[in-house]
Amino acid sequence: MKISDLGEFPLIDRVARIVGVERADVVMGIGDDVAILDCGGEDWLLAKVDSQVEGTHYRTDLITPRQLGRRALAINLSDIAAVGGRPTHALVSLALQADTDVAWVDELYRGLREEGDRFGVVVVGGNMASSPGQAFIDVIVLGSVQRDHAILRAGARPGDSVLVSGRLGDSAAGLRLLLDASLQVSEAEREPLLARHLTPVPRLLESAVIAGSGLATAMIDLSDGLSSDIGHVCERSAVGVRLWEEQLPISAGARHVAELCNEPGWRLALNGGEDYELCFTAPAADAGGLAARIEKQTGTAVTVVGEILPKDEGRWFVLKDGREVELGAGGWDHFAAG
Amino acid sequence: MKISDLGEFPLIDRVARIVGVERADVVMGIGDDVAILDCGGEDWLLAKVDSQVEGTHYRTDLITPRQLGRRALAINLSDIAAVGGRPTHALVSLALQADTDVAWVDELYRGLREEGDRFGVVVVGGNMASSPGQAFIDVIVLGSVQRDHAILRAGARPGDSVLVSGRLGDSAAGLRLLLDASLQVSEAEREPLLARHLTPVPRLLESAVIAGSGLATAMIDLSDGLSSDIGHVCERSAVGVRLWEEQLPISAGARHVAELCNEPGWRLALNGGEDYELCFTAPAADAGGLAARIEKQTGTAVTVVGEILPKDEGRWFVLKDGREVELGAGGWDHFAAG
Repeated sequence: MKISDLGEFPLIDRVARIVGVERADVVMGIGDDVAILDCGGEDWLLAKVDSQVEGTHYRTDLITPRQLGRRALAINLSDIAAVGGRPTHALVSLALQADTDVAWVDELYRGLREEGDRFGVVVVGGNMASSPGQAFIDVIVLGSVQRDHAILRAGARPGDSVLVSGRLGDSAAGLRLLLDASLQVSEAEREPLLARHLTPVPRLLESAVIAGSGLATAMIDLSDGLSSDIGHVCERSAVGVRLWEEQLPISAGARHVAELCNEPGWRLALNGGEDYELCFTAPAADAGGLAARIEKQTGTAVTVVGEILPKDEGRWFVLKDGREVELGAGGWDHFAAG
Repeated sequence: MKISDLGEFPLIDRVARIVGVERADVVMGIGDDVAILDCGGEDWLLAKVDSQVEGTHYRTDLITPRQLGRRALAINLSDIAAVGGRPTHALVSLALQADTDVAWVDELYRGLREEGDRFGVVVVGGNMASSPGQAFIDVIVLGSVQRDHAILRAGARPGDSVLVSGRLGDSAAGLRLLLDASLQVSEAEREPLLARHLTPVPRLLESAVIAGSGLATAMIDLSDGLSSDIGHVCERSAVGVRLWEEQLPISAGARHVAELCNEPGWRLALNGGEDYELCFTAPAADAGGLAARIEKQTGTAVTVVGEILPKDEGRWFVLKDGREVELGAGGWDHFAAG
């Protein structure tokens, strides 16, 4: 069997069964986005790796090396944000073709430095290897989280509200603009969408407010797409969910791009992926107050987009016209055919 | 300028200048093989990443996936050993072609598990991505080291002896046998050399004895080759060195392969690389006793192969016939042309 037949998440489950070991110092091990380790200190240690593969995650004609450096670090910082943590250090592993320009590498590291400086993260090591083919960039981020502030995927309870930070679908809209020059929008619409795709902002400030509130019951960052990522929360928490199209925070720009692509805007928001916004749950009674607190302290809008159901009630998406459709994982699967 | 014109180590120095930040919690940052971090706990945190790139580091027709899994973890554990540390956790980042066999991935993880179990290391996370071309395997190892036991590269002093564990050149000899089927040696010679190349044993037991002794002044693991790696110690410690051909511990098998290749055996031992033995320095008066202690406690032979000189006396290799030749970095450079 090929890994494309199995799919990314079943493959991760499969290898987790091979290497997974119950150990007192492993709070959260393989299969989640961030490893949480109890090394005996006051805080838990966080460790996360994510890669940018040339040809899979980026094309050098569509992203500058400085943007790529920022992005490669930012997507890892987003995972630290997803558990309410604070990033501290990074390592960078590169495999590059021997004829890569030194100036390109310089710019990549300037982007890493820029993003790191913004969030107090210093690059402390890494590896350089030659690649016979495309380039690979792996960024590893270490961080910490207060033991009583860590927010996992497993805590959502029926009756909780589902909240998201920022807007959804901008990154997917930006990617479409990058890939299809025939899509014409104004510069004022185009630039923010491109920026949201190329240099997403990890929601660390928002995460700190959420973690500090003690109100969130579960959290994840939106890397693959809301439909996929909320599915991970449902699995770990053993719950169902109902999301409402009407509530999805979609920018006018993303709606415009969706229209040009003859798609409903909700599809970009639900399945688009790479928004790196936070999706979290909190008791319904607290949701409004928490959203207001985050907006006030960070300036980032927070929206209630759904509610957690008992597991046996399933996972649903409610369209504006009232139809309910089953919520499948429409997000990114690395090994899915086509 | 291309990175192949600059070379691996100047490139690392260059990016270190871009991202390097002095910070109280960074004991050893970018530019060394392992990051040493002071996170406030009793011990220092160690973090290391190293990659195996298909076509650069391995060929799937020459190494089984299980061997590759063992090797990918072992070479990282070797870096933890190099500072006197204890490895605890690993993360694994893979980029694989979509048509990779699931069975191959299973075997890779079985190898990782096997090697991890041997040294108390558990895989706690990672990443899976698709690669449009060759496969890329990054292993990250976390560990710890007692503050007063860490052995850095910078402590070697003139008058110290240079010691190495095990034998040098076996891995290079094994690689030659793998690459050239016309090289004929007996199975009894062949198998240990292949094993030393394919599944090197990280010298963690030996490192624990060395660190515990408090006698070693500097240490490094031999990944690129003794000639290159001792150069790093000389640079960081601001010293020179004299190594003696006569003292190099070379197995009969490696000598035989060198002979078949019409090369002196010392060249394999000095420049071959990938032996993953420890090279360390200690005051000459203590060297014999320390070597004996390691041998007694671990069964691994330890040999004095040279002496540390004042920096202005340079770096020398003394051939058996008494000639002294300047010791250049003859080891592996990832971006060197040809």
